[in-house]
Amino acid sequence: MEKLGRDREAEELGNKKEIREQQLVIEGRNAVLEAFRSGRTVDKLFVLDGCQDGPVRTIIREAKKQDVILNFVGRERLNQLSGTGKHQGVIAFAAAYEYAQVEDMLELASSKGEDPFLILLDNIEDPHNLGAIIRTANVMGAHGVIIPKRRASGLTATVAKTSAGALNYTPVAKVTNLARTIEELKEKGLWFVCADMDGEPSYRLNLTGPIGLVIGNEGEGVGRLVRERCDFLAGIPMKGEIDSLNASVAAGVLAYEIVRQRLQKNG
Amino acid sequence: MEKLGRDREAEELGNKKEIREQQLVIEGRNAVLEAFRSGRTVDKLFVLDGCQDGPVRTIIREAKKQDVILNFVGRERLNQLSGTGKHQGVIAFAAAYEYAQVEDMLELASSKGEDPFLILLDNIEDPHNLGAIIRTANVMGAHGVIIPKRRASGLTATVAKTSAGALNYTPVAKVTNLARTIEELKEKGLWFVCADMDGEPSYRLNLTGPIGLVIGNEGEGVGRLVRERCDFLAGIPMKGEIDSLNASVAAGVLAYEIVRQRLQKNG
Repeated sequence: MEKLGRDREAEELGNKKEIREQQLVIEGRNAVLEAFRSGRTVDKLFVLDGCQDGPVRTIIREAKKQDVILNFVGRERLNQLSGTGKHQGVIAFAAAYEYAQVEDMLELASSKGEDPFLILLDNIEDPHNLGAIIRTANVMGAHGVIIPKRRASGLTATVAKTSAGALNYTPVAKVTNLARTIEELKEKGLWFVCADMDGEPSYRLNLTGPIGLVIGNEGEGVGRLVRERCDFLAGIPMKGEIDSLNASVAAGVLAYEIVRQRLQKNG
Repeated sequence: MEKLGRDREAEELGNKKEIREQQLVIEGRNAVLEAFRSGRTVDKLFVLDGCQDGPVRTIIREAKKQDVILNFVGRERLNQLSGTGKHQGVIAFAAAYEYAQVEDMLELASSKGEDPFLILLDNIEDPHNLGAIIRTANVMGAHGVIIPKRRASGLTATVAKTSAGALNYTPVAKVTNLARTIEELKEKGLWFVCADMDGEPSYRLNLTGPIGLVIGNEGEGVGRLVRERCDFLAGIPMKGEIDSLNASVAAGVLAYEIVRQRLQKNG
């Protein structure tokens, strides 16, 4: 029975996350409006600066409703972005893959009878790192990966490729404010551990229980506002001259430590 | 006293491994012969097929003496490889960085009073993975990284960049036959653990003591001849649909497990 339940679940997830192979560039007023109305996840919207007519105002209203990043740009920039040359003053960049909701991840954990295990990425910019982390999240049994809307790599074709197929199974959610999402998840009982090379050695922390693992940007680490909301800072023992790991390696090491502690606790 | 000793050691290592920024392409008979005579590490030699005159025969003899990979190619291929158009039938590719010897790594461990900890890579092809693994090796205090001569990424500028500077500190050796190197190191008391997703969970193995960690090729894992020589197969707990980690993430997780066991054993 349990196996049947799991297979059905995997199948449902597979259907829900219909896969497309490319980052979509949507040009022209009707096409962009249609994208919004069909519920597609638009990552960014470029609008010709000063353009004020009815259809463009409707598009802007939709974008604001869905909290899409809005950029007002000059005609030259729009022409550069355009593949067809017929943008009519609006170009939208849509996710190649559909994003999930954070709630879906908690439900996934609950349906498996497991404590939630989420990975939150504070502005990972390199799509290879993002792909490798989604792959790691899948292998380690994390229930989802949460990324911020701004200043971060989205789900592009490179991410899908580097994830080695994991993007078909592991839900990825995009949130406006990572710090606020952490606050909300804390109210639901999650603890947060932040990768920080100056933190306590990870194997000395108790990382069992419902947990969110926070990994920082390649250059700057985890931002202050996000770090302050975390319950633990987990360090990785450092013995050499270089003082940090590649972001996807750090995520792998700490995800492994969480899995190890969970498995060893359960005998 | 100990600190002084360490600083001097780091300085010496720094001087020994004089850093150059690029993969070197050396063209023309005199330049290539000079490269061999000055002791530069030549990775590959391309020779015009059928070319049999004296200077070229001398170059081939030097290449064989130093176990350099020899490729006899047509004029068209040589012209493609050539930057100057004046290759005179010979083009050598030399390491951007100097390679170390395996013996240096054992001496490094001994001078630190530590059990040797080496990372061996069975045909890692992606320079980003190689760079990330050298960075991990440094952070985790491994005494060196060993790569095979054939079918593997060498120390290119991309590797140097991805290593985040670790290539300046962590010695990298290139060997002709990885399986034979393992046999030789076993005689010196090292144990070998091979990353294998079907292996025993890594945290259940005893990975303390003098150790070599073997990581396989991105697509194929560790080759049979190398795997058969290993004492343990270490798996990483897998809970998802994807059955392997990115090679540099797998290396990071298992290197961490080795460090964790060493540190916890020593209290």
